[in-house]
Amino acid sequence: MADKAQIPEAIKVQGEVVLKLKSEKASKEQIDEEVSKLLQLKAQIGGDDGEHQFVLKTAKGTRDYNPKQMAIREKVFNTILGCFKRHGAETIDTPVFELKETLTGKYGEDSKLIYDLKDQGGELLSLRYDLTVPFARYLAMNKITNIKRYHIAKVYRRDNPAMTRGRYREFYQCDFDIAGQYDAMIPDAECLKIVYEILSELDIGDFRIKVNDRRILDGMFAVCGVPDDKFRTICSTVDKLDKMPWEEVRKEMVSEKGLSEEAADQIGEYVSLQGGMELAERLLQDQKMCQSKQASAGLMDIKLLFSYLQLFQVTDKVVFDLSLARGLDYYTGIIYEGFLTQAGIAAEAQNGSGAEESVSVGSVAGGGRYDGLVGMFDPKGRKVPCVGVSIGIERIFSIMEQKAEASAQRVRTTEVQVMVVSAQKNLLEERLKLLTELWNAGIKAEVIYKKNPKLLSQLQYCEDSGIPLVAILGEQELKDGMVKLRTVATREEADISRADLITEIKRRTSEA
Amino acid sequence: MADKAQIPEAIKVQGEVVLKLKSEKASKEQIDEEVSKLLQLKAQIGGDDGEHQFVLKTAKGTRDYNPKQMAIREKVFNTILGCFKRHGAETIDTPVFELKETLTGKYGEDSKLIYDLKDQGGELLSLRYDLTVPFARYLAMNKITNIKRYHIAKVYRRDNPAMTRGRYREFYQCDFDIAGQYDAMIPDAECLKIVYEILSELDIGDFRIKVNDRRILDGMFAVCGVPDDKFRTICSTVDKLDKMPWEEVRKEMVSEKGLSEEAADQIGEYVSLQGGMELAERLLQDQKMCQSKQASAGLMDIKLLFSYLQLFQVTDKVVFDLSLARGLDYYTGIIYEGFLTQAGIAAEAQNGSGAEESVSVGSVAGGGRYDGLVGMFDPKGRKVPCVGVSIGIERIFSIMEQKAEASAQRVRTTEVQVMVVSAQKNLLEERLKLLTELWNAGIKAEVIYKKNPKLLSQLQYCEDSGIPLVAILGEQELKDGMVKLRTVATREEADISRADLITEIKRRTSEA
Repeated sequence: MADKAQIPEAIKVQGEVVLKLKSEKASKEQIDEEVSKLLQLKAQIGGDDGEHQFVLKTAKGTRDYNPKQMAIREKVFNTILGCFKRHGAETIDTPVFELKETLTGKYGEDSKLIYDLKDQGGELLSLRYDLTVPFARYLAMNKITNIKRYHIAKVYRRDNPAMTRGRYREFYQCDFDIAGQYDAMIPDAECLKIVYEILSELDIGDFRIKVNDRRILDGMFAVCGVPDDKFRTICSTVDKLDKMPWEEVRKEMVSEKGLSEEAADQIGEYVSLQGGMELAERLLQDQKMCQSKQASAGLMDIKLLFSYLQLFQVTDKVVFDLSLARGLDYYTGIIYEGFLTQAGIAAEAQNGSGAEESVSVGSVAGGGRYDGLVGMFDPKGRKVPCVGVSIGIERIFSIMEQKAEASAQRVRTTEVQVMVVSAQKNLLEERLKLLTELWNAGIKAEVIYKKNPKLLSQLQYCEDSGIPLVAILGEQELKDGMVKLRTVATREEADISRADLITEIKRRTSEA
Repeated sequence: MADKAQIPEAIKVQGEVVLKLKSEKASKEQIDEEVSKLLQLKAQIGGDDGEHQFVLKTAKGTRDYNPKQMAIREKVFNTILGCFKRHGAETIDTPVFELKETLTGKYGEDSKLIYDLKDQGGELLSLRYDLTVPFARYLAMNKITNIKRYHIAKVYRRDNPAMTRGRYREFYQCDFDIAGQYDAMIPDAECLKIVYEILSELDIGDFRIKVNDRRILDGMFAVCGVPDDKFRTICSTVDKLDKMPWEEVRKEMVSEKGLSEEAADQIGEYVSLQGGMELAERLLQDQKMCQSKQASAGLMDIKLLFSYLQLFQVTDKVVFDLSLARGLDYYTGIIYEGFLTQAGIAAEAQNGSGAEESVSVGSVAGGGRYDGLVGMFDPKGRKVPCVGVSIGIERIFSIMEQKAEASAQRVRTTEVQVMVVSAQKNLLEERLKLLTELWNAGIKAEVIYKKNPKLLSQLQYCEDSGIPLVAILGEQELKDGMVKLRTVATREEADISRADLITEIKRRTSEA
């Protein structure tokens, strides 16, 4: 409250900042941020009534999950968790923030999106940007050379949120990684199998998994005449092919990035290629491509990968696609991305929609091989080969939520099996006694926290929240040592002796 | 790397800061923090070999969880989750950071322990300090007037970590709260029932739950002659009674806080009282205490609470204790804290150790009623009465971990049911084929990611990681359409036809 006197001055200054930005035609984002600061200042001095007014909101790009959303989220997590466990993964956890230097130099251009903590004395800290770099730090720190682990946790990116499309600043990643020196492409193939299993099981429409290899990209750039120092920037332009037509990508390469037209056209031919094992075989024969040792090594691995994918029965959804170029710096070999296809979303119910013409609407999984990252943390640079995949849960969750909205089915937010109610007044003690018996027997049960609730409102509560059974107590039941057990759906009632009640409830709820 | 040139200068400056602090005899913590900054700077210019050296550590007061710790943690969470669900709670999630002003003014003196995010343009943000304030913000923002919810998530406090005693800067809280206008003490009693159930089920030794009421404390201070403006500070001195003897607490009140000796002695008499419903009844007759309306109201509620606790069958562990004074500002009524008793920890295996003389070794749960917090967020100040409890998982987890260390039992970190192995070379493809069959049938299965692993090392892996079954493939088995199924524990082997394998594995693993 001591600072309150200074707020009007701060509002004046901030108001000028906003006006200046507007006159300079600054970016909408920049103006919005300064306006939001201004509004916060104004909120602090309160409304007309002089009371303190809070800005009642969550931080930009974040959201709360209400119970219904949590119920859906739990379902999605259980599917993913089930798959990770089926594949024999352990789990670890790491802190939500790391020493700033742990994250420094791992994400290339994206480093500007990292959230830093305020220097309050002590260490300089940043919120984790993904789960991969902390995983690599963990391996190096504990000198672990092989592990198969999953990690489901939130990560943080100061990106421009697009929340309607499921893009947030705080979001979950569900990572599965295999670290260790193994024979080529076996762990890599398992990661693709995992994406396949999860996307199939979630039943959110048709999908494709695109595969490429960092070495094929680099080799391709080399043989097409891209100068070494332009690999990265050209690579990030190629990465835009899923959002832009080739003409625009070509233009960016030539006009903005100064690539020769000839080189751009050669790249254009390659990145239009899609296929399976046969495409890798064809490119291994390609006169230009085979000049690059790197590209050849990558193509051999793609071939081997597809042979394992056949054994894993997933080749119907996996496409070798030379235009796939994932952004992160740390990939060294195979890279992949799982996309839901437009057709898949539009015609969720129909299986087997056309593949070739379907447009990708967004990546829901991605990953690749990163053999160098752990070595960056080891004092002696000892490498631990790693391959992994990250499931982007938020977009999946948005789709599941829409599906739940569209369907008539009720989403239950609790697992309560029985509600203890009374038909007459002054039976609170008896209700609590019975409730205790049920709880102590492990039954999920509730009462209304009122001394004398109306029978109708108690029954209505069960209907509303989907509780299947009601145990009704009245003077007569108490005298007879009975309980009236009512099935909410059918409204059928049966008199059960108190001694048999728990068995009867367990029998009925295990049937459902 | 561009900044590297500036590091030597920064080291010099930082070195001077450290020297200055030492010469000024600054606090150990302050010096340690500056030294840690210095070491980080030094690490950045690398060792003698000129290579970049990372400080391979997690941030101060935080830790990683390895797979074994995670397995224990999962078990603890499942117990807690099971209890929360048995009591019919829904769950919500809120972001890890909130607008700074959301947290401002809610924690009293502890506010200095809040982690702030760096101002990178945009909103001012802080990491959540508990789950209660975000919950209240959520209720006000969504105009929710009644809900029973649990929330299990990490919170952040820039406290002095004491990690050996399970005190961290990042730690989990497991919260259960009931919001809504209900009849007195029914939800409050359920919160205590929950603490009782969880601490019993976790089986970590004997415990007690102390109960008091904010109004009894305030009333007691009033009738003992504590000036109004000293209630808070005297209250926080009383709060130290579980760590200090009365003599020292008295001294702090009189010498440091300027309370009269008479008032201190009167407080001393009250705060030595412990009991149950009968103590509340006695104090309701107490000449001095009954002068305070507040205290009387609190005592009436304690009496009512104990009547419900009797119905819930938990009075053997609940103690009405006038010395209990929880720190947080927002409590308005009943407060409680669950403690493990020394006896409980020392003689974990023995049940029913003496209660009166046992010394509390640390709070593992705490909570209370906070009827005003939601109103602080509502523009019109509309109140939503709330009561809740928070289980402090880290200390419990430390104990569970020690228990696991001490016991000979292996903690499994995966749930793998069967390992697919081969006795001969060149059977990778066959192994992967069988593995796919198992995965597709929902069986948790693994292979070694090598083309030709040794049979012995495959079997050894199963022994080490506790995998119960091995499916062995050889040329002969493949010819005959059979698989040899081995039970790792007994080393028994049986030939199973391929068609029956999945059923057989499911049968055997469901038995276990």
